[in-house]
Amino acid sequence: MSGTPGRFITLEGGEGVGKSTQARLLQEALKTRGINALLTREPGGSGGAEAIRELLLGGDDERWNIRTEALLFAAARADHVRRTIKPALAVGRWVICDRFIDSSRAYQGGAGLIGDDDIMTLHQFGCRNLMPDRTILLTLSIDEATERVRRRDGENHDRIARRPEDYHLEVASFFLTIAQAEPKRVKTVDASGVVEDVAGRVLTAIADLF
Amino acid sequence: MSGTPGRFITLEGGEGVGKSTQARLLQEALKTRGINALLTREPGGSGGAEAIRELLLGGDDERWNIRTEALLFAAARADHVRRTIKPALAVGRWVICDRFIDSSRAYQGGAGLIGDDDIMTLHQFGCRNLMPDRTILLTLSIDEATERVRRRDGENHDRIARRPEDYHLEVASFFLTIAQAEPKRVKTVDASGVVEDVAGRVLTAIADLF
Repeated sequence: MSGTPGRFITLEGGEGVGKSTQARLLQEALKTRGINALLTREPGGSGGAEAIRELLLGGDDERWNIRTEALLFAAARADHVRRTIKPALAVGRWVICDRFIDSSRAYQGGAGLIGDDDIMTLHQFGCRNLMPDRTILLTLSIDEATERVRRRDGENHDRIARRPEDYHLEVASFFLTIAQAEPKRVKTVDASGVVEDVAGRVLTAIADLF
Repeated sequence: MSGTPGRFITLEGGEGVGKSTQARLLQEALKTRGINALLTREPGGSGGAEAIRELLLGGDDERWNIRTEALLFAAARADHVRRTIKPALAVGRWVICDRFIDSSRAYQGGAGLIGDDDIMTLHQFGCRNLMPDRTILLTLSIDEATERVRRRDGENHDRIARRPEDYHLEVASFFLTIAQAEPKRVKTVDASGVVEDVAGRVLTAIADLF
């Protein structure tokens, strides 16, 4: 509750680019600057949203149509924003979130063939269009990302991660489209190499927020 | 699979007006005319939607914000329409559904203070705006409806049914607003008196569909 207002930072990118690791390292780096940031993730991050997460990531491949999936993500996000993110920002706390609206735009919008306008309409409805102050888009070649996922999860991919490679290439492509369209908010960070180097690049990409 | 196209009939109204009973009696009445109608209900009516139903109707009163609730209903309905209702209509089968979009308009829209336009935007997104061929709005005084609910459920009301009386009066009022705005689709039927009499009125209200 210093004079600094809370900042809302999201990490985005495909499977295996290192979002969770970098989110954690960013939280630690902020702590050394005296900032006690809240670390959260999607889908989930609140009681209701975690229950929806189980519906979204479990079950068989055809469990949900892409439009039903988009509505469930929007519902989970509405709960997460209201119960977790907004209360933290309201008291001046920083929030680091592993995935947010850009993941819906890339996975259900671009790669899922739902228009970006429709995804943003759901976001307006559920979250009054809350956007991050800064979004870090971690980029990595699909081969490297696939290898990292294999090391982390073995063959235990969730319902969305196990979609075909073409789908994940579309996701990566749409993330870049968003970054190009919103260069002030979204900073692209090379996620290759050792984690400490990537963490340094992430810090550079948010340096203007301090 | 006669030459008659399938008709989509919904029953609407507040708690305790007799929707489930009348839906069942309507299915039986259609059977005597050689029509094998599918009987279904919301929230639920498909595997995914039944899982969402548990989230919606269980838990404590403040479990979901009204906007999150509206998104969850829209997700459940999108699944129900795609997996259950549209496949039945596509093969010429009649469908009788206990609650549908008008319940979202009344409970989350009118009584929940979300605009009707927003509720219909979600319906457009999830269900391509599928509307019933006929909607039967069952009306009953709030005292009679409350007494029927008491006899049926005792004190075991679900998360929405146990909202205060003011809320349920708003729901009833918004149902009538819909009926007035769409008189061709929505027929108001007096739900007081013995069930067989009500069933006769329901049949009269769909007579032009045969």
